[in-house]
Amino acid sequence: MSISIEEIKRLRELTGVGMTDAKNALTETKGDFDKALEAMRIKGLAKADKKSEREAKEGLIGEYVHSGRIGVLVEVNSETDFVARTDDFKTFVHDIAMHVAASNPQFVSVEDIDKKTLDKETELIKKELKESGKPDKMIAQITKGKIKKYYTEVCLLEQPYIKNPDQTVGEYLKEVIARLGENIVIKRFSRLELGEVQ
Amino acid sequence: MSISIEEIKRLRELTGVGMTDAKNALTETKGDFDKALEAMRIKGLAKADKKSEREAKEGLIGEYVHSGRIGVLVEVNSETDFVARTDDFKTFVHDIAMHVAASNPQFVSVEDIDKKTLDKETELIKKELKESGKPDKMIAQITKGKIKKYYTEVCLLEQPYIKNPDQTVGEYLKEVIARLGENIVIKRFSRLELGEVQ
Repeated sequence: MSISIEEIKRLRELTGVGMTDAKNALTETKGDFDKALEAMRIKGLAKADKKSEREAKEGLIGEYVHSGRIGVLVEVNSETDFVARTDDFKTFVHDIAMHVAASNPQFVSVEDIDKKTLDKETELIKKELKESGKPDKMIAQITKGKIKKYYTEVCLLEQPYIKNPDQTVGEYLKEVIARLGENIVIKRFSRLELGEVQ
Repeated sequence: MSISIEEIKRLRELTGVGMTDAKNALTETKGDFDKALEAMRIKGLAKADKKSEREAKEGLIGEYVHSGRIGVLVEVNSETDFVARTDDFKTFVHDIAMHVAASNPQFVSVEDIDKKTLDKETELIKKELKESGKPDKMIAQITKGKIKKYYTEVCLLEQPYIKNPDQTVGEYLKEVIARLGENIVIKRFSRLELGEVQ
């Protein structure tokens, strides 16, 4: 059984693994490309975190407009234009735009919340707890929980994904990273609603 | 010759003029609806400025995405949902989104430029003129002209309209206001370009 360098390269491109891993996978499956791809993709799931450190500069600007009253633009980056042009990637970008239209997040990730907003929210929660008569020693703990809940309300990656609320958008993203074998980053979004007060 | 109330109402709706004006126009054209509409539209042009004081809260969010690399959302307001649903209005919104994609304005109107940006631009122009050896007494005058040019570069309403560079986007807007007979406001836009540094 001989494995061509082209197959190894193609597998590497499709999955983002190294040449050696790609060669080993093809050897293990006795040269069956589809089986090797499958195996790499399963491994890929574990590698998604590692991939998220790689630079993503290509990608797509996607849009979704609901009844002419809510419009969303989203920038999703991939490492290569090759991946950006796949139907899988296009579907993902469209899903995210639709999700943003429906769920109205304020930030992409927890890290994007500015300190002022977070401080204000924390103060508000603490004030409410105090007014409701919660003992001081419990307030810190409950606040922590409520902030975590706040994240799931305002951060895109922490929100339950509208088309499958069992997973967060962040989990859906990891799944797609594993499947496409490239680092993928939801960089930013813009959402306009007709007549909203700015 | 009899003029039906339905025709008067329809003319009024299409042009935004009062019942009396609509009736007079139909009387003058001996009941020819199309000619009356034409006459109203010509008059409408003069009325556009007056209309722009009326409140516009309906409208459309429009979008334009170029090759998945430049995306634009635009909010254009009208007074009534009726006008927002016309093909004329939809075309206008789409034209504006496309224009923003191509011409990359930074603001909707001159009034939207924040003081800091304008001061910085003015300083820059003055510094350049000084360095190029222009006499002090001429600098103020030349700066004024250069700021005016700057407006045509960064303000959507002052930019030459890409589909007809003989008119500004603001002039095109006035034309549409006259034609549709309602106040129409380009309220805001959002433009994302793939990979741009924020």
